[in-house]
Amino acid sequence: MVHAEGKTPLALALKVSNQIPIGKGTGSSAAARLAGIALAMHFGDLQWSAERVMEEAARREGHADNVAACWLGGFAVSQWQKAPNLSPNGTPQIAGAPAGPGAGLYACKVNVKKSWPLLLVVPQEALPTDESRRVVPTGFSRFQAVANIQAAMLLAAAFAQGNKQLLAHAVQDELHQPYRASLCPLFPELNELSGKKGILGVVLSGAGPSVLLLLDPDVAARRTMQLVAAHLKARRREAELILTEIEKRGAGDAMKPLRSEAEKKKGLRTGSRIKARL
Amino acid sequence: MVHAEGKTPLALALKVSNQIPIGKGTGSSAAARLAGIALAMHFGDLQWSAERVMEEAARREGHADNVAACWLGGFAVSQWQKAPNLSPNGTPQIAGAPAGPGAGLYACKVNVKKSWPLLLVVPQEALPTDESRRVVPTGFSRFQAVANIQAAMLLAAAFAQGNKQLLAHAVQDELHQPYRASLCPLFPELNELSGKKGILGVVLSGAGPSVLLLLDPDVAARRTMQLVAAHLKARRREAELILTEIEKRGAGDAMKPLRSEAEKKKGLRTGSRIKARL
Repeated sequence: MVHAEGKTPLALALKVSNQIPIGKGTGSSAAARLAGIALAMHFGDLQWSAERVMEEAARREGHADNVAACWLGGFAVSQWQKAPNLSPNGTPQIAGAPAGPGAGLYACKVNVKKSWPLLLVVPQEALPTDESRRVVPTGFSRFQAVANIQAAMLLAAAFAQGNKQLLAHAVQDELHQPYRASLCPLFPELNELSGKKGILGVVLSGAGPSVLLLLDPDVAARRTMQLVAAHLKARRREAELILTEIEKRGAGDAMKPLRSEAEKKKGLRTGSRIKARL
Repeated sequence: MVHAEGKTPLALALKVSNQIPIGKGTGSSAAARLAGIALAMHFGDLQWSAERVMEEAARREGHADNVAACWLGGFAVSQWQKAPNLSPNGTPQIAGAPAGPGAGLYACKVNVKKSWPLLLVVPQEALPTDESRRVVPTGFSRFQAVANIQAAMLLAAAFAQGNKQLLAHAVQDELHQPYRASLCPLFPELNELSGKKGILGVVLSGAGPSVLLLLDPDVAARRTMQLVAAHLKARRREAELILTEIEKRGAGDAMKPLRSEAEKKKGLRTGSRIKARL
């Protein structure tokens, strides 16, 4: 990237400290790509906007969801897909319609009212994303498509309002979890706990195999962790339990102090280039 | 309904004043059903929650979207679908999963920050909803389903934040507008104006044939109306232009004073039964 911008790349030796499980459906590859871009921006002195950073990473990654969440923080919503070559039976074109999705990456950070507790359950075995993608059908019924649109909007509204009552219904999914459940045996097993003490909802983390439990902010998380640990032990499952939360700051926010420092040296206006909220 | 609740219905003579176009995709039938239920509640003295009102109306209507918007006001998100009889190739069942969508109606009102101006363009000819439903396919590609989920979440986030820049991208649709465009010729014609002076987005209103223009709150709506009128005139289209806005109060809010009055008479706590926000 530095080279493509007409600058000379520096040789760097990196010492990496990583807390994100690798190959477990927790977005480690998106994080790694963004780390690379952040390094290129810092050492190559590239003045890229948040939009450009996310587009570059999404282009390399193939999808934008983890990229947007990692760069923006909070609950991130993103729109970006490479349009497939439409068959003659594909979507008809509307005259006068502006260019469809794929024309650019649009992302939005929804601030979560509370610092939302999450419990990540990570099995020992990794699951290659390719394998997990293969089991998802290439087409869906109208019922399935509409069900997921309804659930997705309910999820965005629930997080925007900090409405925990809606979360249990908002995590309904028809498009990938039913198909991936056989590859991710932890998921159906933990789903039995949905609605139980302190557990608002149970979802696959990314493409799996990790499972993410949305916790009730008003219940002690330690008690819930014990419940989950006992449930897994009774089923002779080994997994790592990681108590975490929806992180309000994204990587883009973490870059700001570095950039402000660099811009101050050059006499530029502080924080003038990166907007975390598009 | 009054009868089913074990009470004696009153005979009523109604004088109806209606401002909602009928058969034009603006939710008149949902509004009519809710009006009927509101009358039954008032004269039959039924103490129904907002959830029960919306479920009753959605069951009679067949879908919940217009019902939720009309009763709650604001930008309403709803989840309710009758699950079809799944074929052997339908969604696999996940052991341990709670009951799927269709088990109940869940709705949520997203307060819109500004009073959002809208321009409704209503053609002279009505379009029966059945006819408009027939042209929508019963299945979609993964690309189409994902595109609409992304757009729908962006829409919810854009309204929750009052972010008008996102609206143009958030109104992208792959699931019904391309198929209904031939039945609703006003739509592709008005789509040409998307992004032009004061017009943030152009969508079909419900199942059509009316077209809804999301206006920029910072541009004088009268100028935009003139632009639209000239555009239609040049194409020899006759249509009614109705300048309106996202109404913050729903029918449920309008019922509150009536109920408070009745409850006061009985010595009940005012406003204890109806919550507009679930």
